[in-house]
Amino acid sequence: MSGEILRTISRAITALVSECRMHFLAKGIHSRAVDPSNVAMVIVDVPKENLESYRAETEKTIGLDMNRIFEISKSIGAKDLVELSLIDETNLRIKSGSLEYSLSLLDPSAIRREPKIPELNLPAKIVLDAGEFKKAISATEKVSEHIILKSDKNSFTIEAKGDVEKMVFTMAPGELAEFNGGEARSMFSLDYLKEFCKVASAGDMLTIYLGTNYPGRFSFELVGGKVRVEFILAPRVES
Amino acid sequence: MSGEILRTISRAITALVSECRMHFLAKGIHSRAVDPSNVAMVIVDVPKENLESYRAETEKTIGLDMNRIFEISKSIGAKDLVELSLIDETNLRIKSGSLEYSLSLLDPSAIRREPKIPELNLPAKIVLDAGEFKKAISATEKVSEHIILKSDKNSFTIEAKGDVEKMVFTMAPGELAEFNGGEARSMFSLDYLKEFCKVASAGDMLTIYLGTNYPGRFSFELVGGKVRVEFILAPRVES
Amino acid sequence: MSGEILRTISRAITALVSECRMHFLAKGIHSRAVDPSNVAMVIVDVPKENLESYRAETEKTIGLDMNRIFEISKSIGAKDLVELSLIDETNLRIKSGSLEYSLSLLDPSAIRREPKIPELNLPAKIVLDAGEFKKAISATEKVSEHIILKSDKNSFTIEAKGDVEKMVFTMAPGELAEFNGGEARSMFSLDYLKEFCKVASAGDMLTIYLGTNYPGRFSFELVGGKVRVEFILAPRVES
Repeated sequence: MSGEILRTISRAITALVSECRMHFLAKGIHSRAVDPSNVAMVIVDVPKENLESYRAETEKTIGLDMNRIFEISKSIGAKDLVELSLIDETNLRIKSGSLEYSLSLLDPSAIRREPKIPELNLPAKIVLDAGEFKKAISATEKVSEHIILKSDKNSFTIEAKGDVEKMVFTMAPGELAEFNGGEARSMFSLDYLKEFCKVASAGDMLTIYLGTNYPGRFSFELVGGKVRVEFILAPRVES
Repeated sequence: MSGEILRTISRAITALVSECRMHFLAKGIHSRAVDPSNVAMVIVDVPKENLESYRAETEKTIGLDMNRIFEISKSIGAKDLVELSLIDETNLRIKSGSLEYSLSLLDPSAIRREPKIPELNLPAKIVLDAGEFKKAISATEKVSEHIILKSDKNSFTIEAKGDVEKMVFTMAPGELAEFNGGEARSMFSLDYLKEFCKVASAGDMLTIYLGTNYPGRFSFELVGGKVRVEFILAPRVES
Repeated sequence: MSGEILRTISRAITALVSECRMHFLAKGIHSRAVDPSNVAMVIVDVPKENLESYRAETEKTIGLDMNRIFEISKSIGAKDLVELSLIDETNLRIKSGSLEYSLSLLDPSAIRREPKIPELNLPAKIVLDAGEFKKAISATEKVSEHIILKSDKNSFTIEAKGDVEKMVFTMAPGELAEFNGGEARSMFSLDYLKEFCKVASAGDMLTIYLGTNYPGRFSFELVGGKVRVEFILAPRVES
């Protein structure tokens, strides 16, 4: 994989937790975790077709300190090739050019149980440039600590309401990459959404699925579509 | 107006105060304020000719939290069009592309009285690139907390004197855009001058009017001449 | 000299001490100093051939506050010409374009005695791009506080060992600008090496001389070879 893929995976996971289980499945790399307050879940998938080379004779699960992986990934150029391999039962080797790390594995059974991925029936689907969403999210930052995402047949809107001001960001169907006009309205914590957005840049595609006072799904296609990162976020109750 | 104009106006005002009165006059937008310690005054003017569209059926004065306006302006691209309008007697609408803010107005009578603009008879006039002035000001920063601006028929100089070192920045008449060689010498607080300079970039024109132990006028032509920001600063007594 | 030379000299010295003696010799400018804990030495030389103009009728030693010189150098463009001259027995003048500083000299006899440059017999010589070394050093930063530099006939390696991970950076002879394959292995404090690297950028040449549990020499050719900065660093005892 590239340095960019390693950085993207580790940044996505560390948005919610510092340690996780990583599964090397027949179809590729998979990991998921729920944050300590049970408000958000992250699901990461890298299909083996998107890797330069991938070999998993038997499916294998390891425990990793993702903060360390994220730090290591920062020493590696975005386009540089990285090779991950298990040296033995207790060490992961991360090799890129002249640089080689070996990192102790964690006992997977000592890491918090993985969540089940919930089945959600969400009426609204919105597809847009993650950079646009990021800009709107950062514009709300000084206004309020939570925002309302709303969808109806006319538009997708992001609203934030502070003590002396109100902000509304509106996108008409024509400004969205895809939009089904489903009815939905849920409030979310800004802190989580900001954290999610850090994995993405302008040009990355973001698909949002929404319901009313219901969890939302935020699904990012990253590194030119090679990595899929999905966050599921519980709504906040409007007061 | 452009996002850049909104940012420039709000940054100029917030250099001295957080709340101000804004006047929508027949000839354009005007605002002025004096800082809490009565040392400096800021005067902002945007003639209506420099705005894409301007309508003020009756002259109107509103009270604004300029810190909020400055924050909002940061969410708007420099070249993006911004539309300001009064929704009703208590709210200002700021609209740019997909983004729309509504901001509560402040009661103008609750904001500190506006200063009269003093008539100053200042013998020296110096016109130079604001970027040059900014560079010289920032070079004095580690030397002293106040600087002496001096003009005579030979040159315009900026001097700073510390315990172990002295700095002199000299510009000959030929290096200045305009210079009348008037005699003047006044000392000013560096903190204020640094704050003033933040509104400007290299390429913006700055006209300085000086006297001897007398207030100075620092008049900036900003955003390609569309916005005029003038600061008047009281001198410090040399000890 | 250029602003870049002044900045390079002052940054090299201030890596270890804040005050130093500067010698204006017949052959050029020379300075050296040892850090307060006697762990590292810095030696700076600028041959007069590398200066636009140099005049030292009699050899002269002055005492300087190098932190001030470094601050001053930051106000001067990298390519701008700088002129140093003694105004009198107590002041140094630093002039560049419109900017002129005068700085009080320190009494050289009040500055800590200069070290003798030790004669070191070091078997391994490694020449590489300082940018490569800098990158490897910064990759070890989160792993450990000290690193091992190792040379044998196969390669030059940088190793860092933390509690849960190990990093190895390996360069084969073909990846180095010059390499004699000498046997050496010494451990050094990362803090010092990071400080040394700050004087250099990618493209600058670094020559390292190493022994086993012995001081290392780190010799940088800077500003296109115009300035030579050498650091000598005592090894740490491996535990």
